[in-house]
Amino acid sequence: MDNESLMLTIAVLGGTGKEGKGLAYRWAKAGYRVLIGSRFSERAVTVASEIMQLLEGSSSVVGTTNLEAAQQSDIVVLTVPYAAHRPTLESVKDALKGKLVIDATVPLVPPKVTKVQMPPAGSAAQEAKEILGDDAQIAAAFQNISHKLLLGEEEVECDVLVTGTSKDARHETLRLVEATGLTGWDAGPIENSVVVEGLASVLININKQYGSTHAGIKITGVNRS
Amino acid sequence: MDNESLMLTIAVLGGTGKEGKGLAYRWAKAGYRVLIGSRFSERAVTVASEIMQLLEGSSSVVGTTNLEAAQQSDIVVLTVPYAAHRPTLESVKDALKGKLVIDATVPLVPPKVTKVQMPPAGSAAQEAKEILGDDAQIAAAFQNISHKLLLGEEEVECDVLVTGTSKDARHETLRLVEATGLTGWDAGPIENSVVVEGLASVLININKQYGSTHAGIKITGVNRS
Repeated sequence: MDNESLMLTIAVLGGTGKEGKGLAYRWAKAGYRVLIGSRFSERAVTVASEIMQLLEGSSSVVGTTNLEAAQQSDIVVLTVPYAAHRPTLESVKDALKGKLVIDATVPLVPPKVTKVQMPPAGSAAQEAKEILGDDAQIAAAFQNISHKLLLGEEEVECDVLVTGTSKDARHETLRLVEATGLTGWDAGPIENSVVVEGLASVLININKQYGSTHAGIKITGVNRS
Repeated sequence: MDNESLMLTIAVLGGTGKEGKGLAYRWAKAGYRVLIGSRFSERAVTVASEIMQLLEGSSSVVGTTNLEAAQQSDIVVLTVPYAAHRPTLESVKDALKGKLVIDATVPLVPPKVTKVQMPPAGSAAQEAKEILGDDAQIAAAFQNISHKLLLGEEEVECDVLVTGTSKDARHETLRLVEATGLTGWDAGPIENSVVVEGLASVLININKQYGSTHAGIKITGVNRS
């Protein structure tokens, strides 16, 4: 637990989903104060208490509505199904002003989830930028991490590629990646989100073709610090 | 050297470039007959003899024009700079009918090569499909392999993601990946090429940010056969 984590509150909107719950668990474990947001605050309260139980009470996880979570946090992480991406962002837009928004949304279009099909903006993260405005600080990350691995104790064999609207947005996000115990990489500007979001369809295809359940990627050829 | 490699001739268009030379070397070493194509056949002849020297003569590598190489081969691999992508395809279009075309082109737009900037078709491979017609068999692969590693003897720590217009196109390409000594993965339909081509910009950014020279990726979480 470092000084930063003592000061910062992270909201996980859609935090009752599996991915959101896994990330919330990792950050709470690292000492951050975490707010689980949901459309239905009762569900968020339940998930928050489940995470507290996993951590045996030694952390701060609170469940509430998406809006309250966004209002009361320093950093907002979005882990909703793609269908809820735009409505969720529009419903909390005012509360996001001046805050780093980390978008973990994968814009899958069922039933063809093995085919990359991006929204007109180019990617979910670029769509978030369209909704929140050009001065918003947005990063895209965590699209390709299995929630089962996040809630487990084994080493996660998957790196996190981080794109973002600015170097600051990427660096702040890389600190939060590190706090989850994963290895993150600066993957460049927000326009590169098509690669990290689209990789989800590629990995789903690999799972389907090779009988795996949580294909991931690792960056090679670079010294890991 | 298996039966398939005895029968097949691979044309590497733009094979005088570093990437093309590296691939040609690997396939010649595996026993395939290789035709190096270039706009200038003298350059292709020089590169072909350089590869023959590296292999101490025990293989078949011939240099010629792009058109002759395309005409006299069973499989055509395209390793040209993006500026030459459309002109090269148009100049050999008729010779490609009924042949598998493997597109290794990375559509970088200098000077912002760390930013993903795809052509209107969605990717270079989809642009190739537009040029060659809907019945063309096209795969995209090899965009992210360092040519230095291809010409060296060390194990290459980078996997090859293969997209394609059909499962047959991807499987045939995966056989050629295997012949180079690398590990390939079926990365899904041709629409997913944006991910594998765009990954080049992500890896260039990683090289720039982390001081590496040949960042790559490996698929994790799946048994390697």
